[in-house]
Amino acid sequence: MYVVVPFSPERPKTRLAPALAADEREALAWAMLADVLEAVRETGHTPTVLTTAPLEPPRVPETDHLADDLWADLETVVDDRPLSTAVNALLEAAEDSAALVMADLALATPDALETLFAADADVAIAPGRGGGTNALVVRHPGFRVDYHGTSYLDHHDRVRAIGASLESVDSFRLATDVDEPADLVEVLVHTDGYASTVLERLGFSLTVTDGRVGLER
Amino acid sequence: MYVVVPFSPERPKTRLAPALAADEREALAWAMLADVLEAVRETGHTPTVLTTAPLEPPRVPETDHLADDLWADLETVVDDRPLSTAVNALLEAAEDSAALVMADLALATPDALETLFAADADVAIAPGRGGGTNALVVRHPGFRVDYHGTSYLDHHDRVRAIGASLESVDSFRLATDVDEPADLVEVLVHTDGYASTVLERLGFSLTVTDGRVGLER
Repeated sequence: MYVVVPFSPERPKTRLAPALAADEREALAWAMLADVLEAVRETGHTPTVLTTAPLEPPRVPETDHLADDLWADLETVVDDRPLSTAVNALLEAAEDSAALVMADLALATPDALETLFAADADVAIAPGRGGGTNALVVRHPGFRVDYHGTSYLDHHDRVRAIGASLESVDSFRLATDVDEPADLVEVLVHTDGYASTVLERLGFSLTVTDGRVGLER
Repeated sequence: MYVVVPFSPERPKTRLAPALAADEREALAWAMLADVLEAVRETGHTPTVLTTAPLEPPRVPETDHLADDLWADLETVVDDRPLSTAVNALLEAAEDSAALVMADLALATPDALETLFAADADVAIAPGRGGGTNALVVRHPGFRVDYHGTSYLDHHDRVRAIGASLESVDSFRLATDVDEPADLVEVLVHTDGYASTVLERLGFSLTVTDGRVGLER
């Protein structure tokens, strides 16, 4: 299966600005990409990164735990068009089944991805919070993505429109894209990978105030 | 298996106050309880509601789709002590395995609950966002709950401390407790049960602004 991980190296993760400076967001974005690539590789598949610009990993202390061989033989496709356009170009060219896995799924595990990859519907979708589509598998030549808005519901409509079968994959780990400061809590609670290490190096830890969990730095 | 659904009928869901008036929050809380009870029953188990006060379902137009037989033969245990104390009293008395399922898991399906109930570890936990514990199965006599703070991590520590085995159950549906206004989006996107009907009767619908999903009323 052709496994594609879309990534945007230019000014990534702007919605994390309340918690992280620009270079810190960049370090975290690359660390999350590394976590996702590693999880994909552990399922036995070779990921291809669909990127808006050639990949140049940052050389900063926060990411010096990301070994060069993470990127050494990495398949990449550079396409600076909007995400849905670029993804659909790859789906059109794909000869067989394809999977799309977002680069900010820091909680993704090989088990969660294998459950998705093993779904035998024409289209299998792992929803994100807020009606998003965090990961999907496409085995039907007529399916195209549209990531704008309530993509989860729109993708349902498209699957129906082309007469394909659909499966929704119920995974908290795949539903958790790291977009906003509150999401950083999930990285610290549920992972110990590259992204978690970046957050620890940046001085973040969990706190409990009035019975609720938050972050302190 | 003894399946317990803790419910607090007095001033429920106060964190939804930015979106819903007090009587609306009450209607939604009962509708979510009805959704959870129905999902549990569809797994073949008989739920017991652990409640802080005797159950008196509201008689308002928003909940007139909740049939009386939802509550007619319902097993209840009234205990007005703090949640963890009341739950631990039930765990102490339980002769066999017990499951705890929160009453605000409006997205819970029989499939998601069956995956949890089928876990064969001594303790199986479905985490909630923010380090919470949304549902769990206990098959070890030495385990006790503490829902305060990062209960997911605290429960891990307790499982280790008593030498029991642990499984984490990866479910978006069980991870989504409906606490805050943003969570109402998930109810409308992913369900069509009692809670979804209440929100529709209250005039809520999904909107897309700048590519992001929200609610309008």
